[in-house]
Amino acid sequence: MKVIELHRSVTASNDADAEALRAELKKKGTLLINLMSSPGSGKTTLLSRTIQDLKAELKIAVLEADIESAVDAERIEALGARAIQVHTDGMCHMDAGMTREGLEAMGLEEIDLAFLENVGNLICPAEYDTGAGRNVMILSVPEGDDKPLKYPLMFQKSDALVITKMDALDYFGFDLEQCRKRAKHLNPDIEIFPVSAKSGQGMNEWEEWLKKETAAWKE
Amino acid sequence: MKVIELHRSVTASNDADAEALRAELKKKGTLLINLMSSPGSGKTTLLSRTIQDLKAELKIAVLEADIESAVDAERIEALGARAIQVHTDGMCHMDAGMTREGLEAMGLEEIDLAFLENVGNLICPAEYDTGAGRNVMILSVPEGDDKPLKYPLMFQKSDALVITKMDALDYFGFDLEQCRKRAKHLNPDIEIFPVSAKSGQGMNEWEEWLKKETAAWKE
Repeated sequence: MKVIELHRSVTASNDADAEALRAELKKKGTLLINLMSSPGSGKTTLLSRTIQDLKAELKIAVLEADIESAVDAERIEALGARAIQVHTDGMCHMDAGMTREGLEAMGLEEIDLAFLENVGNLICPAEYDTGAGRNVMILSVPEGDDKPLKYPLMFQKSDALVITKMDALDYFGFDLEQCRKRAKHLNPDIEIFPVSAKSGQGMNEWEEWLKKETAAWKE
Repeated sequence: MKVIELHRSVTASNDADAEALRAELKKKGTLLINLMSSPGSGKTTLLSRTIQDLKAELKIAVLEADIESAVDAERIEALGARAIQVHTDGMCHMDAGMTREGLEAMGLEEIDLAFLENVGNLICPAEYDTGAGRNVMILSVPEGDDKPLKYPLMFQKSDALVITKMDALDYFGFDLEQCRKRAKHLNPDIEIFPVSAKSGQGMNEWEEWLKKETAAWKE
């Protein structure tokens, strides 16, 4: 497993770096999706199932960002997808310079769809443009339907919201309609995908969206 | 509900501010506990039950820190405990200056035990001393037993680890012994309390620890 130790970017403007990276990825035809969530929301499990379902159609790669460990990247690599683990030097988010460094170390040749698994944190990652083509937030049912009230910026910055662990909905008394309403109030354009990687519920809609966005990115 | 808008502290040394605040709290006989966790780990539910169980014996107050909303402080106030909501001006953690400002706005007269519900985040809060007498980390079962591998600093900085939502252990296949081993490896002195605020499991041990620490703080 390749592990890259990143260091804080020293460039003046993260926004300019992010725009430049996004333009290069557009030219390459690689859609980069920035996945943001709390720790333990099920990002890696969602990705594992998504990769298994889509790998015959799309070439997928995953950049795993964590403060420590390489457990996530190892899980992804075991599925036969290209993966790299980056360590963020204690940083609570990825910025565009760090994302570029990770992607260059991994290599994007022939990759249609790349995921950046951002550091588990609902606050700081929302403030930094990584250069991704799409931002996706993951909220797991056990976290509760009140999260849009507490972390509004994350919902505002995301193109899609994946609600994971839907199989545990009744157990945790999660109000899906209330959550949907709160998210749409912050961001009327947000696409919402309630899924369970365990039962398979909703995975098809989420994967159709990924295919549609990946095709649109190449146009 | 009183809501205080905090601004970033401008003092040079957070560590010195934290030491000064801790000394003042010691003199007052108020034990401040800094509660840190991911979003949605069940901090407010744990606190609600703890307050109900202990309010006949201890005078308890809660400082709720969030980026937005006042839902948590309202829940606590409804139990008859003193509570204040602070907004962190977008900051992903509380520092000592912000903690002092919140405590002064709330008032600590006759308070034995004060909780700071830090911002939901496993990274940044671990890096800033708030001036609390004890640090407690909350990890919920749905987040997974691998969290010590990913967020080691939080485990190293905590005096106690409360593992919440224990009623969902089997559902999520959480390995308690593995988690305990990983946490103790990072911090051999950490006290571990597996609890369920729903079933009441383990609440007694956690509350006995709080009573013991509160009494010791007054010595």
